[in-house]
Amino acid sequence: MSQFPEPVNELIEKLTLFPGIGKKSARRLVFYLLGQSRDVAVDIAKAIVNIKDKIYTCSQCYNISDSDPCHICKDPKREQEKICVVQDARDVFAFEQTGSYRGLYHVLGGVLSPLNGVGPEDLNIESLLPRLENVEEVILAINPTRDGETTAIYLAKLIKKRNIKVTRVAQGLPMGIDIEYADDVTLTKALEGRTNL
Amino acid sequence: MSQFPEPVNELIEKLTLFPGIGKKSARRLVFYLLGQSRDVAVDIAKAIVNIKDKIYTCSQCYNISDSDPCHICKDPKREQEKICVVQDARDVFAFEQTGSYRGLYHVLGGVLSPLNGVGPEDLNIESLLPRLENVEEVILAINPTRDGETTAIYLAKLIKKRNIKVTRVAQGLPMGIDIEYADDVTLTKALEGRTNL
Repeated sequence: MSQFPEPVNELIEKLTLFPGIGKKSARRLVFYLLGQSRDVAVDIAKAIVNIKDKIYTCSQCYNISDSDPCHICKDPKREQEKICVVQDARDVFAFEQTGSYRGLYHVLGGVLSPLNGVGPEDLNIESLLPRLENVEEVILAINPTRDGETTAIYLAKLIKKRNIKVTRVAQGLPMGIDIEYADDVTLTKALEGRTNL
Repeated sequence: MSQFPEPVNELIEKLTLFPGIGKKSARRLVFYLLGQSRDVAVDIAKAIVNIKDKIYTCSQCYNISDSDPCHICKDPKREQEKICVVQDARDVFAFEQTGSYRGLYHVLGGVLSPLNGVGPEDLNIESLLPRLENVEEVILAINPTRDGETTAIYLAKLIKKRNIKVTRVAQGLPMGIDIEYADDVTLTKALEGRTNL
């Protein structure tokens, strides 16, 4: 690697900090860029700085948006009495794409993880509580991992105290899976959650 | 996707132009960036423009370098009577890393590909010819693909006319491969190129 000119090494190094980009992919990206015009490089550079300058974290739900409050929080047509709690802003976009949810969101910014030293104070939990007034249902849509479960149980306790209905998204077989290859936990959850036909 | 704020969409779109980056990876990269400080984003943006501003294509061998001529072409200690012809500047770095070649290089910038409309005039072939004076051996280190073979044969003809020795890097089994899984062509080449022990 040390054979590359310094600016090339520098960019490769910076790119490998990204998730899922190793040295080989970083090198491929840099050489692709070298083959492009300067304008292309400048455009990408501008777009990178742009997302830091023009994207805000919504001060109500912690979703990312080009406005604060975000377009969901300030939309009076959304069902104000439902809040869907997710780990990450990406999950908001995933639900929005389905078009099947019309309530509000609250982005935790992670999950409780005692092993990694993530406690309730590290997540957007405190800020959820004042939002619960006039809310009828909180839907927990947290990833079904061990830390996710812990977080869901913690939140459920906290919210139920306020006499608000807490639900969680169903676990079961994803579309298109071959049952033979489904893992035990998924199969068990799918059985437990079976519905009448 | 249309649910993302515009600056996010824009960066995702630009990133998917890179080889090996699909929509999902682009999204992951953008969200990673959103989680970083503005300084990190600015640093990366600068590094991207930097490689366009500080990296030159060597006017002799078409290698990339932070100087023109490149550090290899201007090094009098390199064996001036050997030129290794490669497809891509990345191949130069691959050979340099081995430390086992001390001659010069010539980067073609691709291979002849009639199907893709790449002819000799699209490659750095014309510029190779004046460099052949005082050269004793041209080593063809072009990828062993069909277009690569065509290119090698074309170049060999052109160079031999000038009474210069033309060699090509050996084809055979790569280190660590299991012969059982080697493809037919590789096995045939390995047999043909067998050496005395």
